Amino acid sequence: MSEPGFTLGEIAGRIGGRVVGDESARITGVAPLRQAGAGDISFLASDKRRYLDDLAAGRATAVVLADPALAPGRHCVVVDDPVAAFDQILAMFPTPRDVPAGVSPAAHVDPSAKLAEGVCVGPGAVIQSGCQVGAGTVIWSSVFVGRDCRIGGDCVLHPGVVLREQTELGDRVVIHSNSTLGADGFGYRQAGGRHVKVPQVGRVVVGDDVEIGANVCIDRAKCGATTVGSGTKIDNLCQIAHNVQIGEHCLIMSHTGIAGATELGRYVVLAGNVGVRDNIRLGDQAVVAACACVSSDIEPGQVWGGIPAHDQRQAAREYVAIRKLPEMLKQVQQMARKLGIGD
Amino acid sequence: MSEPGFTLGEIAGRIGGRVVGDESARITGVAPLRQAGAGDISFLASDKRRYLDDLAAGRATAVVLADPALAPGRHCVVVDDPVAAFDQILAMFPTPRDVPAGVSPAAHVDPSAKLAEGVCVGPGAVIQSGCQVGAGTVIWSSVFVGRDCRIGGDCVLHPGVVLREQTELGDRVVIHSNSTLGADGFGYRQAGGRHVKVPQVGRVVVGDDVEIGANVCIDRAKCGATTVGSGTKIDNLCQIAHNVQIGEHCLIMSHTGIAGATELGRYVVLAGNVGVRDNIRLGDQAVVAACACVSSDIEPGQVWGGIPAHDQRQAAREYVAIRKLPEMLKQVQQMARKLGIGD
Amino acid sequence: MSEPGFTLGEIAGRIGGRVVGDESARITGVAPLRQAGAGDISFLASDKRRYLDDLAAGRATAVVLADPALAPGRHCVVVDDPVAAFDQILAMFPTPRDVPAGVSPAAHVDPSAKLAEGVCVGPGAVIQSGCQVGAGTVIWSSVFVGRDCRIGGDCVLHPGVVLREQTELGDRVVIHSNSTLGADGFGYRQAGGRHVKVPQVGRVVVGDDVEIGANVCIDRAKCGATTVGSGTKIDNLCQIAHNVQIGEHCLIMSHTGIAGATELGRYVVLAGNVGVRDNIRLGDQAVVAACACVSSDIEPGQVWGGIPAHDQRQAAREYVAIRKLPEMLKQVQQMARKLGIGD
Repeated sequence: MSEPGFTLGEIAGRIGGRVVGDESARITGVAPLRQAGAGDISFLASDKRRYLDDLAAGRATAVVLADPALAPGRHCVVVDDPVAAFDQILAMFPTPRDVPAGVSPAAHVDPSAKLAEGVCVGPGAVIQSGCQVGAGTVIWSSVFVGRDCRIGGDCVLHPGVVLREQTELGDRVVIHSNSTLGADGFGYRQAGGRHVKVPQVGRVVVGDDVEIGANVCIDRAKCGATTVGSGTKIDNLCQIAHNVQIGEHCLIMSHTGIAGATELGRYVVLAGNVGVRDNIRLGDQAVVAACACVSSDIEPGQVWGGIPAHDQRQAAREYVAIRKLPEMLKQVQQMARKLGIGD
Repeated sequence: MSEPGFTLGEIAGRIGGRVVGDESARITGVAPLRQAGAGDISFLASDKRRYLDDLAAGRATAVVLADPALAPGRHCVVVDDPVAAFDQILAMFPTPRDVPAGVSPAAHVDPSAKLAEGVCVGPGAVIQSGCQVGAGTVIWSSVFVGRDCRIGGDCVLHPGVVLREQTELGDRVVIHSNSTLGADGFGYRQAGGRHVKVPQVGRVVVGDDVEIGANVCIDRAKCGATTVGSGTKIDNLCQIAHNVQIGEHCLIMSHTGIAGATELGRYVVLAGNVGVRDNIRLGDQAVVAACACVSSDIEPGQVWGGIPAHDQRQAAREYVAIRKLPEMLKQVQQMARKLGIGD
Repeated sequence: MSEPGFTLGEIAGRIGGRVVGDESARITGVAPLRQAGAGDISFLASDKRRYLDDLAAGRATAVVLADPALAPGRHCVVVDDPVAAFDQILAMFPTPRDVPAGVSPAAHVDPSAKLAEGVCVGPGAVIQSGCQVGAGTVIWSSVFVGRDCRIGGDCVLHPGVVLREQTELGDRVVIHSNSTLGADGFGYRQAGGRHVKVPQVGRVVVGDDVEIGANVCIDRAKCGATTVGSGTKIDNLCQIAHNVQIGEHCLIMSHTGIAGATELGRYVVLAGNVGVRDNIRLGDQAVVAACACVSSDIEPGQVWGGIPAHDQRQAAREYVAIRKLPEMLKQVQQMARKLGIGD
């Protein structure tokens, strides 16, 4: 059995870097500077004071960086872009997993479901009638896949994921634990003093290469489909309401909510904790700052922030002005008295 | 076997509309205008430009609308209120589901639990001792129903729902996937530099006809009950803290959180992403705008918004004024100089 | 079989109070004033009108309070601090639970997992290879414990909890239902118009005596560990991103999100619905008010609020000034006209 990990020389070769120090040093793990111990390789993003302090506080055996003079006494791998290079090293130390081996005898797969070659299904998972699952897809334990779902190849549904009836996923879709796709949209009509449910008979359609975080909700459409475009990434605890249309390659960060039938173009970025109202359109490459509340259309490429959201630079000027407001108020009262203008 | 779907004439009859076009046209599905394909019926809410563009972009076979002149060349069903009429059509095209057939042999039902006639329990579900479940209720896979829960008739608990001990649900309650009712409230007392847990020995009591979205949390009371009144609807990812009292027929939208022991009257509406502090009261028919933060009582019927929330019309005036603030600041400085008032 | 509950005298003895009324009165439950029925004991926190109304509206048999003159006709237990005393009484009326008896035959425990004495595992739970579970820990139904997790003693993982691979928990950790620890962090690098995943190969490490609410997400680190210090309590629906470091004895309330690699000191308090940006530091005993958005470092002991967050007293002054802003705007325009200053 070979030794664990890699030599520093092997790692440098993988990322196209130059070793300053001992090429034969053995690297057995990856860690941030401060948490690093013996055997770990870490990275120094820049010469910021904070990072140098972290370097000194930790015990990394080796460091990926741009300037080896910053880490005297450590083995170094010198590259132009340490952050990007380190991402490649991460992939050399994958977390071992016990992927379910084939279809667990404790899974509940309807005989009519069509599972392609190499599909793995964990114990307690349910796959209902009419489902199709593509090759290489892994469905972990306690996942629910409702009737007539279509799941592409090489997808991963982590434990506790629920796909309600007729949900469609493209290829290489990853959904983290306890997320719910295809629950009923929040639609009621008031009649006789009661909220009467509007039937929610549509579905959720997700493109290729989409990653969806943990405890996310994507509701089925009232009719037709709630859609998530290929390449889009959705962070934990987001809410995507019925009939929302999300374009390709968007980034939607944690705690963001998008209300019914709103449309996002391509490459839209919504930072964390953003609220977006219903029935509006956010153009391609629109960006919304964290904690903003969007209540009107955004043109392509605009950067918005604030509550209600508007141009982010204007919002920033307003925040600065608000800091001065209490003082200004006194000054205005003083001027008003001087001018004999009552309040 | 009969043909799928309905003729346009059958649909028109069901909603009391008048066909302009071919009564025998066969309708096999429902869809929004832009997503509609051959065989689909859709609806035109008004003559807004956006909707007419959507109509032109889609291929709906038939359209429900108020003015058939707006959809030349399509089969039309003419009604006064197309949106309301279309809701009725949705119910004609329900999503097929594989409801668990009776009690699954892979469910874990305590012998002392009393299940009424027609109760269905999916595989992996757990129903503990002392539980009562009313007729017609469906408990899907991987649901947990803790000791001494009481569940009414015709309820639906979707996959992954957790009802902790002593939770009570009325009749016709629907809870979507991965929601948690009855977890401990967030209550601690600081002692000796530690947060010591305050025992949370109360429960959650939910009325009739309540619908609760996916990934919602409703905490058990410290003692007594956290209550949700009949007819209230709660959207995905909401947080209802311990000892909150929610009245009947409220609407609580996504990402809203209500802190401990706060009381809501009847017909309260909280739009999305609202935060409500603890130990306050929101009167009947109070309305809070999206992204607001409520930190004081609201009188019945008032409409509030903003952070901190107050009268929504006043808040709107403030938002308009804030837009002008950076300019006003310059003007005030100019005036102050002219008047010889220092800063 | 003995009578249920306790006499009032027994309860008074337990909390060191003085009975005014009948020491032999039998107490069978605890409830808030308004919800209390016959047999219940409740508490009167103070002489606030609202509490006295609640007392009159309920039917508590006995009341814990500081001044028995406030509750004529009720049996009283007189103490200095009724709220603290009542917390002790709560512990006398625990909610009965059906804790899984040992390891359920319907659980899926890998033979290589090491379970200490007295570990209980519910049906449908999965414990993968290489796991270690300490004595007295309870793992409820449908919980997933991924490969190589280490769980201390006397922990409770409620139904639906997911611990992904290599997660570590200290002793006496409680995690409520449907929470997800160790899902991948939200890390991508844009390349060729696509968001390429940055491998997330770190883990989550949680100290002793931590309580984590329901539907919480704590992401695994990119590398190294996302950490939660001993004694910290996290409320429902919170998001803790990759590589966040949370100190000891913090309180993090519902719907709060902390972005990547941010560090919290000890005894930090984040009230509900707070957003905290990535890569910043909040010092020991920093406090952030509800609904705030923190975008810069906070020094130890400071109290911040607002969007963006800053000193809370300053923020409060600004809110007051904003209320007057629409009027001030008119006044400034009037003055500008008088002074011949154009806009």
